[in-house]
This record gives sequence, C-alpha cells and structure tokens, in this order.
Amino acid sequence: MAERIVQLVLHYDGAGFSGWQRQPGQRTVQGALEESLGRLFDTPTAALGSGRTDAGVHARGQAVGVRLPERWSDVRRLRRALNAVLPRDVWVASAVEMQQEFHARYSAVSRRYSYYVGTDEEARSPFRDRYEVAFEQPFDRGALDAAAVHLEGDHCFRGFAVLGTAPAHDDHRCRVLEARWRDRPGGLVFEIEANRFLHHMVRFLVGTMLDIAAAKRPLADLPRLLAASDNQAVSPPAPAHALFLDRVTYPRELYAGDT
Amino acid sequence: MAERIVQLVLHYDGAGFSGWQRQPGQRTVQGALEESLGRLFDTPTAALGSGRTDAGVHARGQAVGVRLPERWSDVRRLRRALNAVLPRDVWVASAVEMQQEFHARYSAVSRRYSYYVGTDEEARSPFRDRYEVAFEQPFDRGALDAAAVHLEGDHCFRGFAVLGTAPAHDDHRCRVLEARWRDRPGGLVFEIEANRFLHHMVRFLVGTMLDIAAAKRPLADLPRLLAASDNQAVSPPAPAHALFLDRVTYPRELYAGDT
Repeated sequence: MAERIVQLVLHYDGAGFSGWQRQPGQRTVQGALEESLGRLFDTPTAALGSGRTDAGVHARGQAVGVRLPERWSDVRRLRRALNAVLPRDVWVASAVEMQQEFHARYSAVSRRYSYYVGTDEEARSPFRDRYEVAFEQPFDRGALDAAAVHLEGDHCFRGFAVLGTAPAHDDHRCRVLEARWRDRPGGLVFEIEANRFLHHMVRFLVGTMLDIAAAKRPLADLPRLLAASDNQAVSPPAPAHALFLDRVTYPRELYAGDT
Repeated sequence: MAERIVQLVLHYDGAGFSGWQRQPGQRTVQGALEESLGRLFDTPTAALGSGRTDAGVHARGQAVGVRLPERWSDVRRLRRALNAVLPRDVWVASAVEMQQEFHARYSAVSRRYSYYVGTDEEARSPFRDRYEVAFEQPFDRGALDAAAVHLEGDHCFRGFAVLGTAPAHDDHRCRVLEARWRDRPGGLVFEIEANRFLHHMVRFLVGTMLDIAAAKRPLADLPRLLAASDNQAVSPPAPAHALFLDRVTYPRELYAGDT
C-alpha cells in the first residue's frame, strides 16, 4: 500500500513564532509541527506549508501536507493526537486525506488573507490591539473602496513586494480574485484572495491604501505602483500582527473520497 | 486648592502579569501603572485598585483611584499621556474626576465578572483558547441555570474561597445581585455581580457548576456548599485565563460634576 498524504488545516497565533518556516535556533510553526509529528510517528517527518507566513502573522487556515506512516490510517485520530501534543498556540482544525498528486504549495489555486484595522478608540484595548492595527485619524472610507478596485485582476505586484526573495525569472504577476474593505464593529477588515502573494504584499498594500485614505498620497499612486518596476515608491508595510492567513483553496479533485 | 482625585478604568490582558497587586520582582499591573504614573508626575505615585485580580485574570473594567498633582488638571490629557507610556497590555479606557471621599476599594457598591466557557470544537483554537476554557463533554445546560439561581442573594461563600486571606472577623458573606449563564456563539458565559468577592470565588463557583452540569456531582451540593464552614468539598477552581473583571460600580454622587 502506498503512503497516504493528509492535508492539515492549522490555526496559529503568530505572536510567539518567528514565522512559519523552520529556522535553526528560532521558534517557528513548521518547527513546532514537525517536532510534534516526529514524536507521534517516531521518525523525522516533514510538514510542507502552502507558503510562508512572516513573524507575527496569524493563521486560521494555513494548509499543510504531511505523509502518513501506514499505521496512522485514521486521520481523525491523527488530528486528536496532534492537538494533544502541539503547543497551545497551534491547533489543527481539520485533517483530510488527499490524492497522491496533492502538493500543499504547488497545488494551491488561491490564498485568502484578512487584515484588521480598528478605527474606534477602543482599538487600543489589549484584547483588540493584539490582532488589529489602530488607525486613529480622519480618513476617506470611499478612497479605500476605490483603491481596492484597482487591485482586482492580473497585475505585476513588484511595486508592493520585498524583492530579491523570488527567483530571477519571476514576473511578479498575481491574479487578484477579490479585494475589498468591509465594515465591521469598531473598524474595518481588508480581505484579499489571489492565486499567489509576494513577500509582504498584503502589508504593503494595506500600508499604501491607508496612506491614500488619510490623504497622505493620491489615489492615482495605486495604478502607478502597479506599473512600477521596484518598490521604492510604496508606503511602509502595515504591521504583521493584524494579518491573518484565512484559507488556502485546492481543486476539489485532489481530495480523497472519504473526507 | 485641594489635590484632585481621578478614577481610571483599565483594560488589561492578564497573561503577562502576576496579577494586579504590586510585588517585588514580579511584573504586576499595579506595578506597571504606578511606574508610568511616577514617570509622568515625576514623583512616586500610588494607584489604588478596587480589588486584586489573580495572575492570568483579565480586566476590561478595573477601577483605580489616583491623586493628581495640581498641574495635571486635565484628566483627558492624563489619559492620553498614560496610554502613551503604559505597556501594550494595559490601556486606560477612561479617566474621570471624583469627589474627595472616593475610595476605589471601599466606595465600590458592586463588582461584575464574566467567565467564558467554549463548548464547540473550535474553542481550542489559539485565538479563543487564550480567553476561554474548552468544556468538551456532554452537559446539562439546564443544570447551569438551576445552579446559578442558588447563588443569588445574601450567602456565606466560605465554601467557595481560598481561606486565610481575609481578616479573622470576616463573615465571608457576599450579596450576589445577579448570577446567570448566557448562551453565546461557540459556548457560554457566566456573569456574576456582587457587592464583593472572596479570593478565587468566581473560579470555584464555575468549577463547581461545570462539575454539576457534567453530572460529576449533584445540584444539591450547591446549597450544601453555601452552608459549609470551609472549602474542603468545593470542586477545583476553573482556570484564571477565562475570567474577566468587567465593571466596578460606585455611587453616582461620588462622581465630580464635569465628567
């Protein structure tokens, strides 16, 4: 019987981690997960994420691929066992068996992120400040909508990325399926779904859009930045702690029958 | 001109503190607040809380009395200045001037606490696990209501307290103005308001009521515990991290005119 492959969907609070990716001497989510898997399986085990998240960034939908030893045929048992050994700031929301062709990174069709901005005074309360950025100034709500409209579609996002981390041949193009600002009690949330994201892209987008809304730069900068060949003109990235990776989508046919 | 006295209402995330009360060598909320006040006023300054909260317990309504140096006549300016120097896990929600007779502890008419219990699977997610206790077993929802009813009114709560911390003459009587379990998305919250609370009282009450709801002990234990002369028969206290001090109420006439 061939090895089975399982997709884990993870929640994690990014505050205590130096990001997703395993690094020597750092506490990372991948490191914590691989250590727990190694203990359960009694053999070193790789956990492949859909992509990296930066230090401080949270997830409630990070997707991870893991190869299962034969004796762990019951994925629900695996999930329970993992949750019993993982540290408190990581939690496996689901575990489902996938087809052999499944690859957590390359099979992903889209990723979805949310960024939380607090606009009332209580956004500074520690219970919100931990997961939101307080934006305490007059701003043009309509400018945010207008800015988001520019992002949808197929664009080069070189102007909104930390460069040098992608392969030299990368065209930095991303297909943004949806980008919108939603009102919520106490503030706003920016939601964006795309086939892929460049390094710091959501945080650069939010930083720039908030500057536009606060009239620190014109809306016309946005199409200009979408045509830029570098990130020299972008606004500083918004802080990491208000960003959540919400969901990674895979083609339906990659799911094994009995989920 | 006499010294003025101000009431601060604080939010704090208890996770990073060894409770409210200043203690040598420990990070406490009172210690952090007094240090910030001392920096602003340029003189050692006492901050008197309405009562202690234990290590790990949160507040979004702790009331604190502070005497203002004359030059800090503007309480709104004080609030802004404090929020600029306090650590991120403490926040001053309001600052209002009080009458000279105001005493944060002895003037309080009632205190109100909430305790969060998660009953769905996602209660283990780190974003909820930080502020809730997961209660993952079949339970009798009606038994919780029936238990809460017993608590209302004037009772001796010696059976639900860490003893030895109150003065010898203390009769351990508390007047419970309201005690009820409310349903909320994902679980329940226990809300209780009383003229005063004994050490660990809310946590002992919740631990006992959850044991009753899980049929680990009969409902009849509750009136028995309310007549007990010690805490030998109480259930273990529920964890601190799901408890919030919500509000402290003072007589209206203690507020200075221009709040």
